[in-house]
Amino acid sequence: DHFPKLVVGGPENEFVQPAPLRVRLLCELIGTCLFIFFGAGCAAKGHDLLTVSLAHALVTVWLVYVFGPVSGGHFNAGATIAFAVNGKMKIVEIIGYLVSQAIGALIGGALLLALYGSDNTLGTPALSPGVTVWRGFLIEFICTTILSFVIFFTTSYNTQKEAALPIGLVVFSSFLLGADRDGSALNPWRWLGPAVFSHTYKSEAWIYTVGPIGGFLLGYVLFRIYKAIWNWNADNQFHRM
Amino acid sequence: DHFPKLVVGGPENEFVQPAPLRVRLLCELIGTCLFIFFGAGCAAKGHDLLTVSLAHALVTVWLVYVFGPVSGGHFNAGATIAFAVNGKMKIVEIIGYLVSQAIGALIGGALLLALYGSDNTLGTPALSPGVTVWRGFLIEFICTTILSFVIFFTTSYNTQKEAALPIGLVVFSSFLLGADRDGSALNPWRWLGPAVFSHTYKSEAWIYTVGPIGGFLLGYVLFRIYKAIWNWNADNQFHRM
Amino acid sequence: DHFPKLVVGGPENEFVQPAPLRVRLLCELIGTCLFIFFGAGCAAKGHDLLTVSLAHALVTVWLVYVFGPVSGGHFNAGATIAFAVNGKMKIVEIIGYLVSQAIGALIGGALLLALYGSDNTLGTPALSPGVTVWRGFLIEFICTTILSFVIFFTTSYNTQKEAALPIGLVVFSSFLLGADRDGSALNPWRWLGPAVFSHTYKSEAWIYTVGPIGGFLLGYVLFRIYKAIWNWNADNQFHRM
Amino acid sequence: DHFPKLVVGGPENEFVQPAPLRVRLLCELIGTCLFIFFGAGCAAKGHDLLTVSLAHALVTVWLVYVFGPVSGGHFNAGATIAFAVNGKMKIVEIIGYLVSQAIGALIGGALLLALYGSDNTLGTPALSPGVTVWRGFLIEFICTTILSFVIFFTTSYNTQKEAALPIGLVVFSSFLLGADRDGSALNPWRWLGPAVFSHTYKSEAWIYTVGPIGGFLLGYVLFRIYKAIWNWNADNQFHRM
Repeated sequence: DHFPKLVVGGPENEFVQPAPLRVRLLCELIGTCLFIFFGAGCAAKGHDLLTVSLAHALVTVWLVYVFGPVSGGHFNAGATIAFAVNGKMKIVEIIGYLVSQAIGALIGGALLLALYGSDNTLGTPALSPGVTVWRGFLIEFICTTILSFVIFFTTSYNTQKEAALPIGLVVFSSFLLGADRDGSALNPWRWLGPAVFSHTYKSEAWIYTVGPIGGFLLGYVLFRIYKAIWNWNADNQFHRM
Repeated sequence: DHFPKLVVGGPENEFVQPAPLRVRLLCELIGTCLFIFFGAGCAAKGHDLLTVSLAHALVTVWLVYVFGPVSGGHFNAGATIAFAVNGKMKIVEIIGYLVSQAIGALIGGALLLALYGSDNTLGTPALSPGVTVWRGFLIEFICTTILSFVIFFTTSYNTQKEAALPIGLVVFSSFLLGADRDGSALNPWRWLGPAVFSHTYKSEAWIYTVGPIGGFLLGYVLFRIYKAIWNWNADNQFHRM
Repeated sequence: DHFPKLVVGGPENEFVQPAPLRVRLLCELIGTCLFIFFGAGCAAKGHDLLTVSLAHALVTVWLVYVFGPVSGGHFNAGATIAFAVNGKMKIVEIIGYLVSQAIGALIGGALLLALYGSDNTLGTPALSPGVTVWRGFLIEFICTTILSFVIFFTTSYNTQKEAALPIGLVVFSSFLLGADRDGSALNPWRWLGPAVFSHTYKSEAWIYTVGPIGGFLLGYVLFRIYKAIWNWNADNQFHRM
Repeated sequence: DHFPKLVVGGPENEFVQPAPLRVRLLCELIGTCLFIFFGAGCAAKGHDLLTVSLAHALVTVWLVYVFGPVSGGHFNAGATIAFAVNGKMKIVEIIGYLVSQAIGALIGGALLLALYGSDNTLGTPALSPGVTVWRGFLIEFICTTILSFVIFFTTSYNTQKEAALPIGLVVFSSFLLGADRDGSALNPWRWLGPAVFSHTYKSEAWIYTVGPIGGFLLGYVLFRIYKAIWNWNADNQFHRM
C-alpha cells in the first residue's frame, strides 16, 4: 500500500528499512538537481538537437534507474502534482517532494552558474525565432501529456528499473520534437533553475510551468479514463476504477 | 490461444481483466498517432540521417514496450494484414485494428499541421534527387520484409517487452539505409498521415503503401517457410507447421 | 553438449525440435547478408563516423539477439574458424557455416549493387589517406582480438540474448576507432561482399581477411590462457582446461 | 563476504572456482587498457562532443558488463581508492588493483602511440580555450563525486551486469558536460596513459588526478552519510552504518 513500491530496502544490502521520507526527499532533491545540471548543462553550450535530446533522455534513464526505486523518480513538479491528485501521497509527502525538487533545481542552476559564468543563459528554455507562443505551449503540453500517461501506465505493470528506459525514451522523442523549437522543458524545475541564475525571465515563461503541469494532469485524467474503459463491464466479479 | 499474449491484465495492478478489444484498438490508435507525431515530426525539420533514424527507432522501442503487451504493437497496416493472413485474428479485430490505425495516423498528421503550419511537408516521405522509383520501392520492400520476418520470429519466443529493442533496432537499420534516399516509411500510415495534411500526393506514393504491405506479406511467407524447414522431419512424434 | 546452446526450440512456440543444422546455416546466411546490407549499405553513403559505427553496432545487436539463439550468431569467418579450433564444431558444421556466410555476403553485396548502382564502392573498406597498411592491419587485428576474447568469455556465462548488447558495443568501440581510418571490416565477409560487386580489389585487401581471422584466433588463444590462469591450482577437486 | 560478488565462477561454464586475485588483476589491467584504447583513441581524432561522449560511455558499459562480475570493474584509481577506504579490500588487493591499472593504462597509451604516431596528443585531456583551471577542476570533481555515489549506491542493490548501463550513462552525462571544456578524464589513468606516450604534461594536469580521486572519496563519504540517514532510527532491531 506504500507509494512508491520500495525495492532497495533489506538487510542484505545494509539498507535496514524501507526508505524513510527523509531519504526519498533527498533523492528527489539530488535527482532534480542532476537532471538540470546535466540536461541544461548540455543545452547551455548550444550543441545540436540530437546531442541535447540524448543528454536529457539518458540522464533521465539513469536517474530513474538509480533513484526511482527509492522515491519514485519524479524530479518534476508536474509528476508530483499528478501523483498527488491520484490520491496515494500524503500532504506532507506532496509538499516535501515539491520543496525538495525546488531546492534541487536551484542548486543545479547555481552549479551551472559556477561552471559557465553569468554571461550564459545556462540552458534556460526559450522559443526559437519563428515559433509562436501557442506552438511552444502546444509542444510542452502535448509532450508532457504523453509522458504522464506513459509514466502512469508503464509503472502500473513494471518496476521503476524496468520503466527507466521507456520513460527516458519518451523524453528523447519529446526533446527531438521540441528542443530546437521551444527549448523543451517538460518540467517546471528545468525552467526555474537555469532561469533564476541566468536572470532570463521572459513573458512567455508560463508555457514552461503551466504547460508541463497541465500536461501531467491531463495525462493522469486520460490514464484514469483508459483504466475505466479497460475495466468497464469486467467479466469477473469485482469492478474498480 | 488469445492473440496477442496479454501481460498487463491482473487485479494486482488494477487492470481487472485481460485487455478487451476496445482497449487494444485504443492502443493501436494512440501508438500509430505517436509514431507519426514523433517520427514524421522529426523528419519534418530536415535533420541529419542519424537523428531521423534514431527518432523513428526509439519511438518504436518505447511504443512496443509500453503498448505491445496490450495490443501486440502493430501500429502498421502491413503488420496487421500479415497477422491477419496468419489466421489468428478475427475479422472484427482486423477491421478494428486497421480503422484505429488510420484514425491515429490522421490525428498524428493533424497535430503536425498544428505544430508546423501548412507550408511544411510534415515529414511526408519522398524520393531524394537521383533515387529512382524502382530503388525507392526496393528499399521499402526489402526493409519491411526483414522487419516482418524479425517480428514474427522474435515474438514467437520473446515477450513484447523483450522484442521491443530488437524490433526498434531493425527500424533503426532500415531508416539508416533509406531515410536519406526514399524518406523511409516502412508503414503505409507513416506516409498517409503527413501526406493528407500537407497535401503532398505524388505519383510515386504507391511505393510507401504497396511496398510495406507487400514486404510484410513476403516476410510472413518467408517466416512460414522458415518454420516449415525447421520442423520438417522432426524427430519427435508431432509434426506441425 | 550441443553447440551452441539452443533456446528457441520447444513445442509451445511451434518450433518442435532444436534448430537442425539446415536452419542454423540459413540463419548464418541471413545474418551475414544483413550485416553487410545494413552495415556496408550505410558506409557506402559516406556518412560521419558516429552514424557508420552505430549502423554496424546496432545491426550486430539485433542480429545476435534474434538469430544468436539459433546459430550462435557468428556471421563472421573469423568467429567460425575460432570456434572450429575450439573443437566443439563438427567438420560439416564448420564448412556449412563458412559456405553459408559466403553466400550471404555475396547476396548482401548484390543487393547493395541493385540499390546503389555500379559507380559506388558499396562500402568496401579502404585505407584513408595517410593511414599506413601496417596501422590499418593493426586496427583490424587488435579490434578482432578483443572482439573474439569478449565473445568467448561473455558467451561462457551469458545467453546469446544477454551477450548481444556487449558484443554489439565492442563493434561500436572498434568502428569508432577504425571506420574513419581503415574502413573497419572486422570480418572477412564484410570486405568480400561489397568488394566483389563493386570490383574494388586493392593490394592491401589482405588486411581485411588475414587481420580478422588472425585476430579471432589470437583472441581465442588468449581466452584459453585466461581460463587456464583462472582454473590453475583450483582448490576444489577437479582441474580442467 | 568476498568483495566483489563473483558471478562467473562455477563448473557448468568451466570456470571451476571463484576468480582468484590474479584473474581479477588481469581484468583490471585489460579493462583500464581498453578504456584508454577506445576512449582516448576516439578523442585523439578530434570528433564532436556526442561521438567522444558515446565512445567513453559505451566502452564503460561493455567493460563493466563483461569484466565487472570478475573484478568489480574499477578500471579507475579513484574507484579503487574509494573502495579501499570502504574497508572491504585487503592491502594486497588495493596495491594489486592500482599497479594493474597503471600497467594497463601504459599499454593503452603505447597502443595509441603505435596507431597515431608521435605528432598526436593521443586524446590527453586538456582545458579548452577560455576554460579556467578552477572550472576544469570543478567538472572533474563534481562528475566523479556523482559517479562514485552512483557506483556505491547502485551496486549495493544491483549486480554488476545490471549496474553496467546506469554507470555507463553517468559517464555519458559527464562527458557531455565536460569533454568539450576540460577534455574530461574522470579517471587518473585516462590522463596518465595518453600523457606519458604523447609527452603532453601540463601544469594543470593535477586536475585530472586530484580531481577524480578527491571526487571518488567525496562520493564515498556522501554515500556513507546517505546510508546513515537512511538507517537512522530504524524501526527494526538492528542498527548499522
